Amino acid sequence: MGVHSYDIRVRYQETDKFGIVYYANYYVWFEIARTEFFRSAGLPYTELEKKGIYIVVVSSSCQYKQPAYYDDQITVRSRISAVMNTSFTFEYEVARGNNLLATGKTVQVLVSKDRKPVKIPEDIRKVIERRA
Amino acid sequence: MGVHSYDIRVRYQETDKFGIVYYANYYVWFEIARTEFFRSAGLPYTELEKKGIYIVVVSSSCQYKQPAYYDDQITVRSRISAVMNTSFTFEYEVARGNNLLATGKTVQVLVSKDRKPVKIPEDIRKVIERRA
Amino acid sequence: MGVHSYDIRVRYQETDKFGIVYYANYYVWFEIARTEFFRSAGLPYTELEKKGIYIVVVSSSCQYKQPAYYDDQITVRSRISAVMNTSFTFEYEVARGNNLLATGKTVQVLVSKDRKPVKIPEDIRKVIERRA
Amino acid sequence: MGVHSYDIRVRYQETDKFGIVYYANYYVWFEIARTEFFRSAGLPYTELEKKGIYIVVVSSSCQYKQPAYYDDQITVRSRISAVMNTSFTFEYEVARGNNLLATGKTVQVLVSKDRKPVKIPEDIRKVIERRA
Repeated sequence: MGVHSYDIRVRYQETDKFGIVYYANYYVWFEIARTEFFRSAGLPYTELEKKGIYIVVVSSSCQYKQPAYYDDQITVRSRISAVMNTSFTFEYEVARGNNLLATGKTVQVLVSKDRKPVKIPEDIRKVIERRA
Repeated sequence: MGVHSYDIRVRYQETDKFGIVYYANYYVWFEIARTEFFRSAGLPYTELEKKGIYIVVVSSSCQYKQPAYYDDQITVRSRISAVMNTSFTFEYEVARGNNLLATGKTVQVLVSKDRKPVKIPEDIRKVIERRA
Repeated sequence: MGVHSYDIRVRYQETDKFGIVYYANYYVWFEIARTEFFRSAGLPYTELEKKGIYIVVVSSSCQYKQPAYYDDQITVRSRISAVMNTSFTFEYEVARGNNLLATGKTVQVLVSKDRKPVKIPEDIRKVIERRA
Repeated sequence: MGVHSYDIRVRYQETDKFGIVYYANYYVWFEIARTEFFRSAGLPYTELEKKGIYIVVVSSSCQYKQPAYYDDQITVRSRISAVMNTSFTFEYEVARGNNLLATGKTVQVLVSKDRKPVKIPEDIRKVIERRA
């Protein structure tokens, strides 16, 4: 099934003058969820970088359903919903307890240090597909 | 019809360790472009807030085509592509000279201070539709 | 002694193109450490706000000794080092294991919702002085 | 005297739930002011990086006198107030019209790509001292 959950406390810095979390910050949370997803799969992102492989987001989206507030304890659930030849898709749910606050999606490709696309290596593909 | 252009210099703080602009920051630029769009239409966002009207983003998306780098002079082009009963849609293009770096879209609703949806007032609708 | 420790994982978004944590982000960590300091003292910041009391920083400083990197597990130690009539001072240490990365200081005042200075209420003073 | 002025429009993202600019963001503005200071001196920071020279902040401080608000047009004045053997000091004033909002200071050293301190090269020293 491969859904990974990660808890985040909303920072004061993440709020805006309307008193809610600024809309771009959900993407920061998505990135943290991806990082922790890979760490829990035994493939920390820092290890990928040592192999000269970098993850670049080529597409991102978010639907905002209810606001998140300062100091909220929120949960970001992430899963890999698709694996293609050179890209893979993450989907996310942001919740506060039973309240779904937002859903999102990002598509990633792997690139080398000079930003050339890289075919997903077999060991990484195994991890991704196992979790998908 | 009604395309507004705004120039932004990429900040050091907006880059990440991969040497390019962090993906969430494009949404910050979209918000700046919306702000300047309304200002140029004679409807500054601070005026809306004085009327007790706030703009809340309910959906956002971005496609990243080429990276943006530190100190780049970029242009964000924004236009209103749809006006519904209670919501309206912005579309964006981020470019460095002739290079298209990213495209994006956000959907907004108007709400009162207590975050209740508000039908788009006639004077605002006129501005929005004139620019759309 | 009243030193409070809080662990933070460095976010990708917090790094810059030089590959280290951007210098302004240490102040975000200081703010998180203050928040958790008060929470652990039984005085969560959200409770203060319900009483109409807000904490405003009037002065901040940081000395950077060693860089922090992406994905580092860092510890922020915070303590109240001085309590005056209307202000109090926090001091911070940012460490990665035994490596001291940075030290910092912030001075805060209490204000009402309309940003008028407020004498530190007795119950808050007790908490602050107990921890100092 | 070598004071450089740079105008910045306050972004929505820079505000917090108290309705004012979040305190760490002044340091982002200081960094922009330094960047523009060097650009105006004919020594853009991107040129420094091409020579393999990076500027690292070793100390920063800010005194907050009045809040800055969303959409404010602010001016950041910067000047080099001291040049040492391997470091130099910037001082800043943030103002909205005639209102001084904040003052600040940063100390920088030059380092190579592997973060070793570098003696200030003669051509850079000339620029810095001319402006100091």
